[in-house]
Amino acid sequence: MRELAEQLLYRYAAAIDDGDLADWPDFFVEEGLYRLTSRQNHQRGLPACLIYCKGRAMMRDRVTAIRHALTWSPHTYRHHYSNLLVEPGATREEPVALRANYLLYRTEEEGDSTLLATGRLIASIRLDGPARFVSKTVLYDACRIPGNLVLPI
Amino acid sequence: MRELAEQLLYRYAAAIDDGDLADWPDFFVEEGLYRLTSRQNHQRGLPACLIYCKGRAMMRDRVTAIRHALTWSPHTYRHHYSNLLVEPGATREEPVALRANYLLYRTEEEGDSTLLATGRLIASIRLDGPARFVSKTVLYDACRIPGNLVLPI
Amino acid sequence: MRELAEQLLYRYAAAIDDGDLADWPDFFVEEGLYRLTSRQNHQRGLPACLIYCKGRAMMRDRVTAIRHALTWSPHTYRHHYSNLLVEPGATREEPVALRANYLLYRTEEEGDSTLLATGRLIASIRLDGPARFVSKTVLYDACRIPGNLVLPI
Repeated sequence: MRELAEQLLYRYAAAIDDGDLADWPDFFVEEGLYRLTSRQNHQRGLPACLIYCKGRAMMRDRVTAIRHALTWSPHTYRHHYSNLLVEPGATREEPVALRANYLLYRTEEEGDSTLLATGRLIASIRLDGPARFVSKTVLYDACRIPGNLVLPI
Repeated sequence: MRELAEQLLYRYAAAIDDGDLADWPDFFVEEGLYRLTSRQNHQRGLPACLIYCKGRAMMRDRVTAIRHALTWSPHTYRHHYSNLLVEPGATREEPVALRANYLLYRTEEEGDSTLLATGRLIASIRLDGPARFVSKTVLYDACRIPGNLVLPI
Repeated sequence: MRELAEQLLYRYAAAIDDGDLADWPDFFVEEGLYRLTSRQNHQRGLPACLIYCKGRAMMRDRVTAIRHALTWSPHTYRHHYSNLLVEPGATREEPVALRANYLLYRTEEEGDSTLLATGRLIASIRLDGPARFVSKTVLYDACRIPGNLVLPI
């Protein structure tokens, strides 16, 4: 169970880091929820998010926007996850809860690697059938993310 | 055994990162030892430590000092552990030995996340009964830690 | 299997980080391959490498050069591996495939710790007999590594 949750997280990161962005929505269940917000907003219960996607259709829209609509300077990500804690659901059908910390580095084309964000994530993962996120909430510790954020974390 | 040692380390970090500092002494056995020193001091066998606490009572004193006596600008930590190696004790009652690397980021309130320290730790962990540190020695690679260190690592 | 591959990687890093450089070739099989190159070179199929060693003899040459021939300012490394994915070989005798991300920090003597490189590695590991790398290819995300690289990653 722990290993399945770990692998889902690592394959998710590898897809984004390798540029396979079209695969991103498939890491979630059909009605899955993705949120990216600051630690402070989350603590205060404020609903504002830097990225908010409810359902794969909304995620696919975002992928299309990133590819065709938005203007951004070419760069790649490198995700590093640490301190993974997995908690089983009440029954085998219930999703498991995952908590982890992350470090995210961005490398500009022909440039250096710099820290984009560090923080933690809280996820709910369904393991009956192919492992998928029911929800993934990514919190960053700083009050803001430097530069324009385009890709999901 | 490996998973119990891992979880102890990750829960320890989560307590400090989430601000639950009062829980810190409970991660150690009653007479537990916590030391924070530079890699160079440790290699040369020099006893000087940036933080030295022998026993939970001394740790509770430090928590009280941090909360009521010391003056410091508000900030939070983010621990990232990596490269965990666990070695079993000679018998089931003997503590296990843990070696790990760490990266520690500090985020100022309304500020950015910056690297505070990287290095490694050596710990002795008792697993008969609730998992607790018998000792935890944290070494930082740089010759000093930037800024005033207030919270334990 | 996963744990054996993990331990090999962590012990490899500990040997370099602790300064036990003479042990480096022994982490490979006799004809083992070590390559260090940029992500871009690798993607484009360009053969140029920052470090290329085919076989333990070539690795021992490099260790000797580092110790006696090259001039470099004293520093230490700290490896942090993350996101390990292990894939078993087709048979028990086949090597397993390992993919992982890494962060590498360098600390100058009497200085600070700074990021040297982040990226990923692809390794092939033989687990029949003592665990050893058949090959280890380390890719860095930036277009170059800051400063002169002397030690292997």
